Amino acid sequence: MRKLRTAFQGEPGAFSQEAVRQLLGDGATVAPFQRFDEVFRALADKDVDAAVVPIENTLAGSVHENYDHLIEYDVRIVAETNVRIVHNLIVRPGVRFRDLRRVFSHPVALNQCLEFFAAHPGIERVPFYDTAGSVKMIVKDGLDDAGAIASSVAASIYDARILRRSIEDDRHNYTRFFLLRRTKDAKRLEAPRGQWKTSIVFSTRNIPGALFRAISAFALRDLNLTRIESRPLRGKPWEYLFYVDFIGNLEDQRVGNAMNHLRELADMLRVLGCYPRGE
Amino acid sequence: MRKLRTAFQGEPGAFSQEAVRQLLGDGATVAPFQRFDEVFRALADKDVDAAVVPIENTLAGSVHENYDHLIEYDVRIVAETNVRIVHNLIVRPGVRFRDLRRVFSHPVALNQCLEFFAAHPGIERVPFYDTAGSVKMIVKDGLDDAGAIASSVAASIYDARILRRSIEDDRHNYTRFFLLRRTKDAKRLEAPRGQWKTSIVFSTRNIPGALFRAISAFALRDLNLTRIESRPLRGKPWEYLFYVDFIGNLEDQRVGNAMNHLRELADMLRVLGCYPRGE
Repeated sequence: MRKLRTAFQGEPGAFSQEAVRQLLGDGATVAPFQRFDEVFRALADKDVDAAVVPIENTLAGSVHENYDHLIEYDVRIVAETNVRIVHNLIVRPGVRFRDLRRVFSHPVALNQCLEFFAAHPGIERVPFYDTAGSVKMIVKDGLDDAGAIASSVAASIYDARILRRSIEDDRHNYTRFFLLRRTKDAKRLEAPRGQWKTSIVFSTRNIPGALFRAISAFALRDLNLTRIESRPLRGKPWEYLFYVDFIGNLEDQRVGNAMNHLRELADMLRVLGCYPRGE
Repeated sequence: MRKLRTAFQGEPGAFSQEAVRQLLGDGATVAPFQRFDEVFRALADKDVDAAVVPIENTLAGSVHENYDHLIEYDVRIVAETNVRIVHNLIVRPGVRFRDLRRVFSHPVALNQCLEFFAAHPGIERVPFYDTAGSVKMIVKDGLDDAGAIASSVAASIYDARILRRSIEDDRHNYTRFFLLRRTKDAKRLEAPRGQWKTSIVFSTRNIPGALFRAISAFALRDLNLTRIESRPLRGKPWEYLFYVDFIGNLEDQRVGNAMNHLRELADMLRVLGCYPRGE
């Protein structure tokens, strides 16, 4: 899977680029986009070979927009990885801590460094569209009273300096990323070695006990759910789509039986991917 | 419940203010705050008597921040209501449609009017912190090339003019709001008449089948779940809190039995409120 041209959201140095490296090695070429829908569209339109998108963070929760895109575009999940998120306070070379009046970053990153801001009330937090992009901006605009919060890779890419390392409130901060391919190009991977995961999405009839019956398809076969996420169903107020991840490979008979069982109960059922479980 | 001083997030004219009117009538006095955490804190600190917060939208999904605040603060849900969201294109008096170069609004509102922007590619969409706040701003700053997307109430409050009514893509656009009181002040309401809803939050032990067993406590008693939402559990990566709403009153024996059953299975269980079901 080397040298795949791979789309991600954000500026060079974004945490998504670290995920690309973990998933595809240093040989992958990257194509950054500003928005998630542009990443999915680039993959669907064959402008790139693959895409890497965040799906959930252990503090902030799901990236709901990407759950929605997974069913809007004809793509498959072929791998997952978890990236440990370390937030650093970054400045232009020469800027000292006492010069700082404002710090730019993505709102999620700012919210994950609340203790830093509580300890330094003279520093304003300013939402920006991207973590790495905020480093690029303070360097390009030559800001002498501003910092940015981003990855160490972003600091090195933009020749900026790390003033404080690891200023995040909580070290249990991981983001899970998916590697996506077009469905046609997502080859059936080899027979399971180690643990596999399968991701599906389904809707149930709007009747009492429907979700209970649906997940009984897994429980009755001792298949372990690792995640359930609900999203609103368009055009049907107060009805939901359920996204479920479970441990198992689609080639296993037990998993096949569970899927057949679920198909009896679900209005809609789609497999989003079957892939080796990440670390 | 008239004349309660009630906090909400947003500028006067926000959809939350319409929810206050639906829940408490025109007699309630309102206290607007910029952020949701300020709304919860004002209630907890007794600066206000009640608070009204959005919890989910039929298109955008859950307002996750408010799910988190529901367990951070000592508050109770005492009522719910659904507000139909109608987005209007609003300008200063005298501004014509052909003058428009940009339109400001909250990102969620902008995303719910994509067909309008696709039909008018010359108009840029500009994210702003609040729907009603964007009307206030274009009027105050005297912008002649800009519009805002907000409620009709916002147009009348700020003496602005509606250029186009109901420009949202999807009419199935409702937001569900909770009325909150401090736990101590949330009187036990009268015996159930009509349908009641109960909202709870729980975590399960991280073992296979745990969620299935937890929701069996409801299914085995024919109690109808209307909503399940998961949020990450702080400090335990890849474990989750589950927020569940179901039809039923805590005074019903069947509900009491379900809660006792769930208590056997759950690591943590808390009741967030028991309230008459909204329209």
